Amino acid sequence: MRIKVINPNTTAGMTAKIGEAARAIAAPGTEILAVNPASGPVSIEGHYDEAISVLGVLDEIRKGEAEGCDGYVIACFGDPGLLAAREVATGPVVGIAEAAMHAASFISTGFSVVTTLTRTCVIAEHLVERYGMVHACRKVRGTDIPVLELEETGDVTFQTVVAECRRAVAEDRCGAIVLGCAGMADLVARVQDEIGVPVIDGVAAAVVQVEGLVRLGLGTSKHGDLAWPLPKTYTGDLARFTPTRR
Amino acid sequence: MRIKVINPNTTAGMTAKIGEAARAIAAPGTEILAVNPASGPVSIEGHYDEAISVLGVLDEIRKGEAEGCDGYVIACFGDPGLLAAREVATGPVVGIAEAAMHAASFISTGFSVVTTLTRTCVIAEHLVERYGMVHACRKVRGTDIPVLELEETGDVTFQTVVAECRRAVAEDRCGAIVLGCAGMADLVARVQDEIGVPVIDGVAAAVVQVEGLVRLGLGTSKHGDLAWPLPKTYTGDLARFTPTRR
Amino acid sequence: MRIKVINPNTTAGMTAKIGEAARAIAAPGTEILAVNPASGPVSIEGHYDEAISVLGVLDEIRKGEAEGCDGYVIACFGDPGLLAAREVATGPVVGIAEAAMHAASFISTGFSVVTTLTRTCVIAEHLVERYGMVHACRKVRGTDIPVLELEETGDVTFQTVVAECRRAVAEDRCGAIVLGCAGMADLVARVQDEIGVPVIDGVAAAVVQVEGLVRLGLGTSKHGDLAWPLPKTYTGDLARFTPTRR
Amino acid sequence: MRIKVINPNTTAGMTAKIGEAARAIAAPGTEILAVNPASGPVSIEGHYDEAISVLGVLDEIRKGEAEGCDGYVIACFGDPGLLAAREVATGPVVGIAEAAMHAASFISTGFSVVTTLTRTCVIAEHLVERYGMVHACRKVRGTDIPVLELEETGDVTFQTVVAECRRAVAEDRCGAIVLGCAGMADLVARVQDEIGVPVIDGVAAAVVQVEGLVRLGLGTSKHGDLAWPLPKTYTGDLARFTPTRR
Amino acid sequence: MRIKVINPNTTAGMTAKIGEAARAIAAPGTEILAVNPASGPVSIEGHYDEAISVLGVLDEIRKGEAEGCDGYVIACFGDPGLLAAREVATGPVVGIAEAAMHAASFISTGFSVVTTLTRTCVIAEHLVERYGMVHACRKVRGTDIPVLELEETGDVTFQTVVAECRRAVAEDRCGAIVLGCAGMADLVARVQDEIGVPVIDGVAAAVVQVEGLVRLGLGTSKHGDLAWPLPKTYTGDLARFTPTRR
Amino acid sequence: MRIKVINPNTTAGMTAKIGEAARAIAAPGTEILAVNPASGPVSIEGHYDEAISVLGVLDEIRKGEAEGCDGYVIACFGDPGLLAAREVATGPVVGIAEAAMHAASFISTGFSVVTTLTRTCVIAEHLVERYGMVHACRKVRGTDIPVLELEETGDVTFQTVVAECRRAVAEDRCGAIVLGCAGMADLVARVQDEIGVPVIDGVAAAVVQVEGLVRLGLGTSKHGDLAWPLPKTYTGDLARFTPTRR
Repeated sequence: MRIKVINPNTTAGMTAKIGEAARAIAAPGTEILAVNPASGPVSIEGHYDEAISVLGVLDEIRKGEAEGCDGYVIACFGDPGLLAAREVATGPVVGIAEAAMHAASFISTGFSVVTTLTRTCVIAEHLVERYGMVHACRKVRGTDIPVLELEETGDVTFQTVVAECRRAVAEDRCGAIVLGCAGMADLVARVQDEIGVPVIDGVAAAVVQVEGLVRLGLGTSKHGDLAWPLPKTYTGDLARFTPTRR
Repeated sequence: MRIKVINPNTTAGMTAKIGEAARAIAAPGTEILAVNPASGPVSIEGHYDEAISVLGVLDEIRKGEAEGCDGYVIACFGDPGLLAAREVATGPVVGIAEAAMHAASFISTGFSVVTTLTRTCVIAEHLVERYGMVHACRKVRGTDIPVLELEETGDVTFQTVVAECRRAVAEDRCGAIVLGCAGMADLVARVQDEIGVPVIDGVAAAVVQVEGLVRLGLGTSKHGDLAWPLPKTYTGDLARFTPTRR
Repeated sequence: MRIKVINPNTTAGMTAKIGEAARAIAAPGTEILAVNPASGPVSIEGHYDEAISVLGVLDEIRKGEAEGCDGYVIACFGDPGLLAAREVATGPVVGIAEAAMHAASFISTGFSVVTTLTRTCVIAEHLVERYGMVHACRKVRGTDIPVLELEETGDVTFQTVVAECRRAVAEDRCGAIVLGCAGMADLVARVQDEIGVPVIDGVAAAVVQVEGLVRLGLGTSKHGDLAWPLPKTYTGDLARFTPTRR
Repeated sequence: MRIKVINPNTTAGMTAKIGEAARAIAAPGTEILAVNPASGPVSIEGHYDEAISVLGVLDEIRKGEAEGCDGYVIACFGDPGLLAAREVATGPVVGIAEAAMHAASFISTGFSVVTTLTRTCVIAEHLVERYGMVHACRKVRGTDIPVLELEETGDVTFQTVVAECRRAVAEDRCGAIVLGCAGMADLVARVQDEIGVPVIDGVAAAVVQVEGLVRLGLGTSKHGDLAWPLPKTYTGDLARFTPTRR
Repeated sequence: MRIKVINPNTTAGMTAKIGEAARAIAAPGTEILAVNPASGPVSIEGHYDEAISVLGVLDEIRKGEAEGCDGYVIACFGDPGLLAAREVATGPVVGIAEAAMHAASFISTGFSVVTTLTRTCVIAEHLVERYGMVHACRKVRGTDIPVLELEETGDVTFQTVVAECRRAVAEDRCGAIVLGCAGMADLVARVQDEIGVPVIDGVAAAVVQVEGLVRLGLGTSKHGDLAWPLPKTYTGDLARFTPTRR
Repeated sequence: MRIKVINPNTTAGMTAKIGEAARAIAAPGTEILAVNPASGPVSIEGHYDEAISVLGVLDEIRKGEAEGCDGYVIACFGDPGLLAAREVATGPVVGIAEAAMHAASFISTGFSVVTTLTRTCVIAEHLVERYGMVHACRKVRGTDIPVLELEETGDVTFQTVVAECRRAVAEDRCGAIVLGCAGMADLVARVQDEIGVPVIDGVAAAVVQVEGLVRLGLGTSKHGDLAWPLPKTYTGDLARFTPTRR
């Protein structure tokens, strides 16, 4: 099975880290393609960064179809371009936010999300609503760690994340923590050791989810709004995104 | 006051029609810039078309800031890129779906949406949830008219829209109809004459809404998630979208 | 265009202030009739005050129809009698709470309301639910300023409002503030200057909203529950409220 | 125990019928005062009728306090003036819509409401939302029987109600029916005989509910928004509604 | 009238206390059978305890049908087995959580629940959602008093409950308190005296509710999902639970 | 990895079928223990059957802990005893309804459930609410096929299921179908072939979900309400269910 894990930002170091996390959990026989777009923001920390990054995500999905990918992971906690990606994918496409939240709901009756910048909390909160997780998500908490600082190896970032997780456990009556950034994928085990409740990394959760769907023979439904895009002209620079008839 | 009305698709004929509708309602002294992106889909009929169109929308907003625009209308019923657009705008940005739904909620206790393809109904339904309109929106109804057929001047399309509106009035206990496509802007008066209940075109509704916000001195809040994008590198082709420090 | 702005309480000083705020924002050519009922409570600070005030509101609407008013604003943050008023109005009727909340939702992803007495917070919260603003309203905050103290010109009241707004910005992750009382209409600019995020006064917001609906040719839907009241007998003292056939 | 059952309209025949229904269910030792206001609409069939009727309801509550009433029933399916009434009552105040819906939720997992005019369905639907009954109320169904036709003794009205109840049972997967008008109080037993599922009349349900609350020693909470109205001036004709200090 | 009040745990002392509370409120002529199952957990402090206790609850309902019981109260704040119990009961079955919450909603616009262990708060919160009480329940508060400590007569427990109720009144803007454990039935009057807002015990509230439903002639609907269990084989030890045809 | 798949009813033939479906999807190296309780209902077709079946489910979980099971599937579409089971399990416990609904939400924006008896639809609908799937579940449809008829090999049952799925696709605008009974596990491929949209069997979906959670190292959170049951006495016949200290 071939799964493409798409880091929507263009920071290769983060892509490598994400790829490592994906491969560490992937089943024997699963090939992980960890990629990032050639162009776009180096990190995603707002609606605008996210909107621009969607182009790269869709490009990677389109290429993935040609490469015979069986499924896709969108490895940014805002799940950018998720429904659009599903329209152009044969196999399943899963975002790390949705995978993490769903996993958390299976092992606890309430979880909190610990993410990076406070200004992005609202993005996670909108997903909580969209995915029907209002009953299960106790709180979304920002740490105000810039995404790219997660790429540095010092201990400060780790301690900041741990401290916020402890606050979540103490104040939110939560049974599990979801780490709200793909760049935290390497922290998950250590954070869990520190705080003693299950901690969930969306990258690993999404890889496992996609593998499962592929094994179940479940691709994206091509009946209704996720069917292939209607054939039509795309003009100008974006012509290369023209959907092709299938 | 200068308001930019952005048709997210690249069909100039539709842009002209939208511009006409905007100018017809604009207050004296309001200048309407009706534009569409140079590149992208000729019509928006799904999540994928919409996601790609966002690039053009954001480009137009960015240009609009340089052009001294006081506010913006996103003239596609999916309100593509709305929050991202707000991040890069000083003035207010209003989508035609939100403007139309809010207007409908002021004059009725329940409205129905009549739109184009059935496959796009779910896009409108997601907006109904996002905008808190579940209490007011009785039903979203597809007519399966392709968007570009609205550009043709024949009577068939008009009759199809009227027929669906009649069904809405008869079956949904609705007091108003929202037309769910910018391309229907020229039909609104005739449809209302036929069915006898208020019919709302989002383009006109959004122009009026933006004018009002500008007069109120209300621009997009720059406190929190709609603040200017954080300064950072955008790589490759998309480098021209790099947010600039303000 | 003639817009009647109805202060539901009987304090003429507040009516004058509301009228001033309305005229300050009204478009050229809009005539503002700022009125209050001849009888009723001098301020509205609870369900009971509000219920009694509805009679005066409806009286003013009925007179307004005879006076050729094109639209109406109900200038009390509980929007008393809104649906009843719509039944007897040809043009649009907009409450200041709904206008303010809708405006806030266009320029931010989350707003807080700062109002007068804590005991009236629940009235605003019920409106938040009714208007579908649960996703956007972060918190309703009481200041325990009696409504009529807003009529005094001292600085204490202003400082109390500013202090609560600051708390809202610091604690609620809100991008905008809605002032929850018509009597605060004269504070809006100064409060905004102090706290640095958009502050919204419902009176101005509602005037602009009504003007917009009138320009759009959108009156209250007369199809369904907002149609003219059914002709019937009203007995006794209230006979003068008998709906007349149209 | 003395319970005042207030018919908010001014049709004495309906008051008599409501009083009969109340007395038929009241416990030994409960005195029922069945009253209607001296002035107001002869029937309540819309938001406007309802808003005007609130004055009479509050008048009766105020008199009831002087008369030593232990609790109150508001006997119109829109529960007009409920929260305002609670502010001026020592004992509990229960509306027939809320009583009926709560009773239905105890004996079934889903009920439908069968009411009079279709135009009033939205009033019941708003109450369904306000009372948290969305999970339990399957549908609100209008029969387009004018309220005062329920005062006539012919069989047509009865058959119309039965027919709609049958449709509800067949189509809504409901386990109980709530009759949505105080004027149907005399039909409940016969309708239940015909359709074979529990049928609930709000008048009886509310009397029992109020009796129970009084026995439990539970009056309206005077802490918070239902505390006595703040003392203040009421001007003009409405001065007699001036809240008095307690 | 004969009402069976079922304490789902097997602590006879608590059953006695519950019986006393039930008899103290029951109407003249109502016979209270206060029982507990012969086997099962001595207290219910989690999902598991609750699930096991359901067997005893259903056994008591089945016996109650043979004993001619007219209605039932399930006297544990998680309302264990409520819908299953309704399937095998002719008369109404009411849980103390639902009875208490509904009562609270009639006398206040917001209540808080004060219960025993924090770990059981989520059980109450799920009921708040199930019963549609999200609009009315301000907060569920744990005191971390083990259920059986409520059986001891010292003052510490009482003071702990009072302290938490005071916090609720001070912080939650609630107008009433619901005590979240049948074992608190004897505290209700003293707690109310201390804190000065209405305090509700579910046992008393449920007895009154069941009496009322019986007087209304409303038994559990036997149309739909609460109809008698379908006749079928139950194998092994549980064969005695085999539903019998009626 | 050892996964126990628990059929909560006592029909061995259905257990065998469920075991087959589980083994067919299980990863190499996963051992499936397909079991059913020794005693209880032969099929689960209502709240009562379900409540009684929980005892057997919990017994199997407790035995499974001694047997070294890594995770559990509850293979009945009502997910009976799910939270209680989680309290006594180290590893993850997943119900087939939740697994199927979550899977459906990953591959479509809307799904419908096709189940057995209409009287059990409400059980599925309650789960839709509990799991936050209201946004994604278009409709729950009963076929009125008794559960044990699914054990017969004739074609009638299959055709009935297919017909209802076709109706769902035609009327509900759904992109996927969830089969709402473990006993339909063997139909899934054939139904999918017939109707041409993805069809999901909860048994397979749950096995894959549990495998994934185990691989992720995610067991049930032992922090909060899913922690081990508190040690306490269970009296009488149910003493064997006494939770033991860990």
